[in-house]
Amino acid sequence: MSVPTAATDPAVCTPLPVLGRDVTVPLVTGGEVTYAALDYAASAPALQRVWDDVAAYAPYYGSVHRGAGYLSQLSTDLFESARATVAAFLDCRADDELVFTRSTTDSLNLLAAALPAGCQVFVFETEHHASLLPWRDARVTYLDAPRTPDEAVATLEGALATRDPQGPALVCVTGASNVTGELWPVRELAAAAHAHGARIVLDAAQLAPHHPVSVRDLDVDWVAFSGHKLYAPFGSGVLAGRADWLREAEPYLAGGGASRTVSRRADGGVDVEWHDGAARHEAGSPNVIGAHAVASACKALTEEGFDRLVARERHLIEKVRTGLAGVPGVRVLSLFGDDAPRVGVLSFVVEGWNSSHFAAALSAEYGIGVRDGLFCAHPLVRTLLGTGPEAQGECGAPEAAPGEKSLNAIRVSFGAGTPDEHVERFTAAVAELVRDGAKWGYRTENGRCVPDTAA
Amino acid sequence: MSVPTAATDPAVCTPLPVLGRDVTVPLVTGGEVTYAALDYAASAPALQRVWDDVAAYAPYYGSVHRGAGYLSQLSTDLFESARATVAAFLDCRADDELVFTRSTTDSLNLLAAALPAGCQVFVFETEHHASLLPWRDARVTYLDAPRTPDEAVATLEGALATRDPQGPALVCVTGASNVTGELWPVRELAAAAHAHGARIVLDAAQLAPHHPVSVRDLDVDWVAFSGHKLYAPFGSGVLAGRADWLREAEPYLAGGGASRTVSRRADGGVDVEWHDGAARHEAGSPNVIGAHAVASACKALTEEGFDRLVARERHLIEKVRTGLAGVPGVRVLSLFGDDAPRVGVLSFVVEGWNSSHFAAALSAEYGIGVRDGLFCAHPLVRTLLGTGPEAQGECGAPEAAPGEKSLNAIRVSFGAGTPDEHVERFTAAVAELVRDGAKWGYRTENGRCVPDTAA
Repeated sequence: MSVPTAATDPAVCTPLPVLGRDVTVPLVTGGEVTYAALDYAASAPALQRVWDDVAAYAPYYGSVHRGAGYLSQLSTDLFESARATVAAFLDCRADDELVFTRSTTDSLNLLAAALPAGCQVFVFETEHHASLLPWRDARVTYLDAPRTPDEAVATLEGALATRDPQGPALVCVTGASNVTGELWPVRELAAAAHAHGARIVLDAAQLAPHHPVSVRDLDVDWVAFSGHKLYAPFGSGVLAGRADWLREAEPYLAGGGASRTVSRRADGGVDVEWHDGAARHEAGSPNVIGAHAVASACKALTEEGFDRLVARERHLIEKVRTGLAGVPGVRVLSLFGDDAPRVGVLSFVVEGWNSSHFAAALSAEYGIGVRDGLFCAHPLVRTLLGTGPEAQGECGAPEAAPGEKSLNAIRVSFGAGTPDEHVERFTAAVAELVRDGAKWGYRTENGRCVPDTAA
Repeated sequence: MSVPTAATDPAVCTPLPVLGRDVTVPLVTGGEVTYAALDYAASAPALQRVWDDVAAYAPYYGSVHRGAGYLSQLSTDLFESARATVAAFLDCRADDELVFTRSTTDSLNLLAAALPAGCQVFVFETEHHASLLPWRDARVTYLDAPRTPDEAVATLEGALATRDPQGPALVCVTGASNVTGELWPVRELAAAAHAHGARIVLDAAQLAPHHPVSVRDLDVDWVAFSGHKLYAPFGSGVLAGRADWLREAEPYLAGGGASRTVSRRADGGVDVEWHDGAARHEAGSPNVIGAHAVASACKALTEEGFDRLVARERHLIEKVRTGLAGVPGVRVLSLFGDDAPRVGVLSFVVEGWNSSHFAAALSAEYGIGVRDGLFCAHPLVRTLLGTGPEAQGECGAPEAAPGEKSLNAIRVSFGAGTPDEHVERFTAAVAELVRDGAKWGYRTENGRCVPDTAA
């Protein structure tokens, strides 16, 4: 299979239509410019196709499950068909369960609530907090940041070798870092986990929007992702995988939909028989529109083809990397080295700049939306910056002292809806800001760095 | 203040525009008819205004919290302004906290997870499962169904009088029953709870779409409701009320957004400092569109005015009650008596009919969407029907034996978007079905009662 490139396939240069592509925003220096949304790793704009599907369905929205009306039956069928579409998108096994949640965070909290008693959890310190923190009732082993994919596998194997081989264990790993965008060796980590009798859950929040995810090929036990990062920001996420732990667990939420029968006992108490299957963990009226939106995005990406999506993203990544490489004082953060395979997510610091100040200037003077901070992955970003858990500086004093370490970083991220112009504007703006400085003064207001319009 | 009536104010007869009002559905007997959505108690159609607000915002959707871009800041402001709008709609106290959840079920599970150690919970058996079941780690006292509002207060007072007065206690009560539509004496129950040092949470899922809810006037400690029953079906719900238990509790979900700082310890573990306030329980990217939709609905209902909304609903309730009263063999279910104040939710059984069969005929032959079953309030419906927890019958044998008790019921529910024609068609259809029988044969397929098109 030949991979398309911009040279061989002009469509590689064509982004998928997304909402907001024509939105203009004011510049502090005067005038307006189309908004360059470069914070896809936090939340991506809706695909136009997703919006159109939601809008087409909305008048037909009805109560699901036991509603007897036509629209209730249509909506119930749509909800279950969304489940099947997403399971196919993830290449799930036939006996896997797929639960609609609200987000990856919710999915991993659900799995954490479903761990068998005594389960040990192994997680790298490099994870997003959504993967790092949910394992509250478990014995958690935090693994140090590896510096190569091979070291990641070796580190996990070393840790698993010392575990109690009798009890249940779970490894949680991200598919692509939300900070560096780097791909993790998921298949190899899954093999290591299984060799030691452990299971593995893949946090695909950053991977699924950019690369195909096959539960079967990767041989992971569960996968979690979020609609709002997959061009479907309507409040739904997914946990899919092995049915057994989910079936044996207490329902995630207690309420209607999860309960099959409820009856008073003679002693005044209440007996509950819970559903098996996905319904067990989906109490309450399901978010049909959210699930439909996720399924619509899965269909749209599949129809476009990940070959082309990956090729296009490589093309954008190259533009960003080349652009940043030419700017003095810019350091791109990386665990596995600058040339490691990655998705369209890059974090960097600029020597002599407070990152919040730099991000504010990109927004106010260029109409570019990036993110600054620690990206809900504090230990990883501190490891990459070489800093401790100090408080962040105020942006009113934007210039860091020469040689002073940045306490936070700037992240640029993009995807299927990003036109070349956005990343070109971004790299030009970075170069100009570093060369000429900001054109405006900034101050901190309610924790945000904003243009000092009183200045 | 004079209450408007259909006679004094023609606008009382004008429903608010909702999505789907022009949708037509096929009839098994031939032809099409506009769909009569009469399952509002499960999920209401979106107000046109809510949809318009969502559609207007969607192109401006952006990542919230630390996003530095213009649309991120706009979205963050919109999210927090939605919080303020909903708090005003509920007439919250200044120091109350308002958490966006996914639904009432989620809200009450959140509160259940935030109960202080040793908390006793008091709940009537008449509650929806979302209110009945979340209190898993607490000592729960289930109270028998009262037959008058006064008996409800007396029953609660009797139970609270026997409790350990030192420990924390919570009463959970619905504002309006999801089965009978009857209003519960919330203010009096709140006074009883407080007199005994207990707190109270109001399940306003069925109340808020129909009546004004004032946390201050009712003097309840928390209130929960769902967007999808309040004409905003975009996956968001609300828990609002006292900050202290929420602040002292472990975060509902562990992840980004809930965590202020996360750092490795020297011993390899991880230290987490959690946020206070709503963020503590809102880990993960918030559902901005869902929160915005709820706020839009709150504004729309407030601007229309509950005086008029209540008057209009009374007008519809009277039509339904009068219509059903004229049909032999129809029994409307009620705890507090047929004349008790209620919202637009009525459940009933028809002598000699299996309820699923009756509901299927209303759908297939009249284009009317109601609900059949036990409405996720099993103990209440069984108390009202006088039945035990037997399995439901198949609808292939629709005729119940003479004198046989119905094992489930039919529920009709409506609200701000319901035109008179829908309830008129409904009462005429009930009368015709009882008089002439169904025109078609039905069978059970995948748990649903459907027209037997092979017949």
